[in-house]
Amino acid sequence: MRIKLVVAYLGTAFSGWQRQANGRTVQAEIERAIGRMTKGPMVAVVGAGRTDAGVHARGQVAHLDLDADIPPHILVAALNGHLPDDIRIRSAAPVRKGFHARFDARAKHYTYRARWRHTAPPWVTLRTARLRPVIAEAAFEKALELLPGTHDWASFTVEDGERASTTRTLLRVRSRVRPDGIDLHFVGDGFLRYQVRRMVGALLEVGWQRRTPDELLSLIEDPRRGSPVLTAPASGLTLERVYYRRPG
Amino acid sequence: MRIKLVVAYLGTAFSGWQRQANGRTVQAEIERAIGRMTKGPMVAVVGAGRTDAGVHARGQVAHLDLDADIPPHILVAALNGHLPDDIRIRSAAPVRKGFHARFDARAKHYTYRARWRHTAPPWVTLRTARLRPVIAEAAFEKALELLPGTHDWASFTVEDGERASTTRTLLRVRSRVRPDGIDLHFVGDGFLRYQVRRMVGALLEVGWQRRTPDELLSLIEDPRRGSPVLTAPASGLTLERVYYRRPG
Repeated sequence: MRIKLVVAYLGTAFSGWQRQANGRTVQAEIERAIGRMTKGPMVAVVGAGRTDAGVHARGQVAHLDLDADIPPHILVAALNGHLPDDIRIRSAAPVRKGFHARFDARAKHYTYRARWRHTAPPWVTLRTARLRPVIAEAAFEKALELLPGTHDWASFTVEDGERASTTRTLLRVRSRVRPDGIDLHFVGDGFLRYQVRRMVGALLEVGWQRRTPDELLSLIEDPRRGSPVLTAPASGLTLERVYYRRPG
Repeated sequence: MRIKLVVAYLGTAFSGWQRQANGRTVQAEIERAIGRMTKGPMVAVVGAGRTDAGVHARGQVAHLDLDADIPPHILVAALNGHLPDDIRIRSAAPVRKGFHARFDARAKHYTYRARWRHTAPPWVTLRTARLRPVIAEAAFEKALELLPGTHDWASFTVEDGERASTTRTLLRVRSRVRPDGIDLHFVGDGFLRYQVRRMVGALLEVGWQRRTPDELLSLIEDPRRGSPVLTAPASGLTLERVYYRRPG
């Protein structure tokens, strides 16, 4: 039986989603919890996206195969009972055999929360990044409007020797001014490694008057890896939701 | 110069507020941060209430004396720069010399967040306690109404060989039904050790039909230490605010 999980985690104390030899990861914690629950052989959990160290999730999606026919609400309660407090399974649902959390994902929604001061309670600030305030607000907003569209985002990623194409479609960008900061929402059909954090970094550089909107445009129009763009801190980034074409 | 601090913390990884020989405490972390900031001799920080291990705060209040005349917003930023992520200084303000965070406190507001399921993201569930659902809602609400007033709360505390009087006034109690749980608000002129968690425990026992509202009333009317009342888990308790007669 294939199961789709929706997973939330506070990324602060994790070396990211993906299982690795050293370091605490979300994937390994969930696989361990399943092992404790089923007392059977190891079950692999496949995530929609490999969030990096320190990145949070409100709606990461993962799939796994279970032999036992466990009612979804029981599965949720049992897994949460075996998981550490900084990971919560939000829901579980049976899906068709061919469902794949990563390959079937049509779009993802990330939020970046930048704050100029850190005077909210820790359960808020732990999901934000404290950064120097944006002073050139008009330039910042202008730069934001340059981002959506289908572009080669090579300037906004890093060499990872894995992906052939660096072209992705950024469907929607939205900013929301908050007390002492700004939230930035990004919806796209997929994101390269560090892409959101480097888009945010480039936007902030515009807001700090270190870079003009035209310079940001040239990073998009003249794509090259290793361009000198700030990578905004992981602590501000949250994977909010993963979208699929057919239900669950 | 005497300074009043408003402090928030996620209590999960703390052995409570009060400095102790072993265990990570909020008071010790703040005192250490002040030491790093001033590079001077140790400064004692006095809190309004000694929250127990695992208890959170949104608005704990503390006072301290500083030799240097540091503008409050600089003090907040500097302290937060030296503090771990699970403590945030929310504000700092100069106060009259005689101000005392503990002795001058007129009332405190605590919230207890009980949840029947744990499917919210961890930044929410970390401040809640997962408990068996209340089934006898009418009895629960009736029991809630028995609590306010000036009572001897000996049945709701533990021997700590320190306090002469166990009489306190509970000014206001309010319940708010939430998805998958309930929030309970308590405002009183002071609370004994474990009092809120044991009031919540007794209420839950009524909600679970283990105890009648009349039995809860007898715990109030016939006060005796060591009565068999459930102490609800620390993870659900947050010190929301401390009230003072004159402005801070």
